[in-house]
Amino acid sequence: MTLAEQIRQPTLLLDSNKAQHHIARLVHKAQTSGVRFRPHFKTHQSAVIGDWFRQRGVQAITVSSVDMARYFADNGWTDITIAFPVNVRQLPEIDALAQRVRLGLLVESIETAVTLHQHLTHDVHIWLKIDAGYQRTGIHWQDVELATAVAQAVTAAPQLHLTGLLAHSGHTYGVTGETAVQAIYHETVARLQTMQAALRQHGWQVALSIGDTPGASLVDNFRDVDEIRPGNFVFYDVMQAQIGACALEDIAVALACPVVTKHPARQQIVLYGGAVHLSKEMLRGDDGVNYGRIARLTHSDWEILPYKVVSLSQEHGIVQGDEALLRETAVGDLLLVLPIHSCLTANLMKRYLTLNGEWIEMCSAC
Amino acid sequence: MTLAEQIRQPTLLLDSNKAQHHIARLVHKAQTSGVRFRPHFKTHQSAVIGDWFRQRGVQAITVSSVDMARYFADNGWTDITIAFPVNVRQLPEIDALAQRVRLGLLVESIETAVTLHQHLTHDVHIWLKIDAGYQRTGIHWQDVELATAVAQAVTAAPQLHLTGLLAHSGHTYGVTGETAVQAIYHETVARLQTMQAALRQHGWQVALSIGDTPGASLVDNFRDVDEIRPGNFVFYDVMQAQIGACALEDIAVALACPVVTKHPARQQIVLYGGAVHLSKEMLRGDDGVNYGRIARLTHSDWEILPYKVVSLSQEHGIVQGDEALLRETAVGDLLLVLPIHSCLTANLMKRYLTLNGEWIEMCSAC
Repeated sequence: MTLAEQIRQPTLLLDSNKAQHHIARLVHKAQTSGVRFRPHFKTHQSAVIGDWFRQRGVQAITVSSVDMARYFADNGWTDITIAFPVNVRQLPEIDALAQRVRLGLLVESIETAVTLHQHLTHDVHIWLKIDAGYQRTGIHWQDVELATAVAQAVTAAPQLHLTGLLAHSGHTYGVTGETAVQAIYHETVARLQTMQAALRQHGWQVALSIGDTPGASLVDNFRDVDEIRPGNFVFYDVMQAQIGACALEDIAVALACPVVTKHPARQQIVLYGGAVHLSKEMLRGDDGVNYGRIARLTHSDWEILPYKVVSLSQEHGIVQGDEALLRETAVGDLLLVLPIHSCLTANLMKRYLTLNGEWIEMCSAC
Repeated sequence: MTLAEQIRQPTLLLDSNKAQHHIARLVHKAQTSGVRFRPHFKTHQSAVIGDWFRQRGVQAITVSSVDMARYFADNGWTDITIAFPVNVRQLPEIDALAQRVRLGLLVESIETAVTLHQHLTHDVHIWLKIDAGYQRTGIHWQDVELATAVAQAVTAAPQLHLTGLLAHSGHTYGVTGETAVQAIYHETVARLQTMQAALRQHGWQVALSIGDTPGASLVDNFRDVDEIRPGNFVFYDVMQAQIGACALEDIAVALACPVVTKHPARQQIVLYGGAVHLSKEMLRGDDGVNYGRIARLTHSDWEILPYKVVSLSQEHGIVQGDEALLRETAVGDLLLVLPIHSCLTANLMKRYLTLNGEWIEMCSAC
């Protein structure tokens, strides 16, 4: 059976060569920078893809939920950071995990530190979440008073080990180009170092951890930090291409969608592939909205076409084409959609079909 | 254990009284109009909630995929329309379903009709999908030539039974208020009747089927059509409230989210509840973007608060509050988010917790 014949309904294709290439590249960059590579596994959520990292020497990972930590612990990972502010409603589950693995947690308030102190019976490693400019969450990088107070609450608890400062500079997603992304990276590092120096005056030696795929892709040397935690880079997506973190050709996943109807009068094609497959993530540009970039299967790969999904409802994706696309595309054909945000698409699809025709499962409980 | 104690992580709460009230209301409206009620089950995707319809006499349903049709067929439903243009890559699955249930399919091209003729061995009921103004898909309501040609291709096939004209007036989602929604409803019906009359001249008697929750909510009598297929009304959501199809108090689902951090300086609260739980569906208004309306659990229900989710990343939801909300909310508390689009939220969450503390499962293969 050919790959196309295997595809009966919306199916997330994975070019494993591209993904493995991206993994190898980041492993190499981290090694030459002398920093720990702790990739974020929320993008792929798959034990099989996790093994591709392990085969290249990766030993520590990042996840975004307790369920995801449990899934990867069940698959042999022993050093896991949950990069989300501690959810104190899951303390028993967190404590059970801490018994099994070296568990890293994010804390940004005294009350959470105190709660962990009162309820955890096993050791955990605490990262203070620092807001280095993104303004989503975390202790403001200049708020030394709060950071010191939280650090004191942490160090007062024998089972909580103050480990470092952690930032996610998600504002790299709001800029384009190497220079702008590098500027945010260097600003983030400088701000973390300011806080690091302030804590050192109290006698605390803390490591620095940074995340975000644009920074990890466009910065060459991470010698100023101790670990990097990008996740999306394993697949990339149209948003990353717009930022300049990758080329469209680097994107490693594509949703294969059956063509169900053609509308020649308005040169549109209707795909079986909608918000329940791709998510409603979109880009808004001078040429209107973009819910995904169109590609077509070739013998060994896919080729990117100059079309996009311009409208998306629950199961329908509307492609704005032209005479050529409508002429060359029949009802029942497949068109591929490169996702705007691959993490959300993977999370919805729950499994991958590689270009070799092999199914790769994801965590079903995440 | 109280309901709040049952909730450890983002959990989709269902007020089953509200949902059952909405079901009873639509059943009654359909009965007094003398039309078939064929509710769309893609909103809830649950056999248990399906039973609530069956207990009120509903016998025919609408779904959006072959997998969903199979799930409800497995749960005793015998009259199912798949309200999505036929995906000709799933002909064996469609044929297998047609053997088990009275199966309705949507066709809008000659090529699809011919393909069904060539491959199906069991009888199916064909609805011509008509575009009555929404411009997403379907045969344009004035394109009598195409409709006639497709109808001929259908009637030439002994196993294809030409049943009716089906429209989804999704452009009701772009207006607000009873008058505007009713105007679209009446325009849709008039346009379908025009096509119905044209086909009658060729000797074809066809039924009329309309969908969309705004129309079904705001029109009182459906005597001019033969069946109605709303789905979202079972839960409603913030988008429907904005259209005017329901009040915020009618919304029957809410995502319960643990509070993980507070940021008093900018009066924001960070929820554990993001795009992987709510979807990225949003409303854009004069007061900025809205990813969901905030509520709080009471003893028996929830009360709606004057706050909203203003930013949403993969797992984080940012609530813009005020002094009062920050004072009355602690880390570890629950806040509820009424979803913008309940269908997408339910599809992500995959199960419900009723206010009585009972879990209701959804189709896991849909």
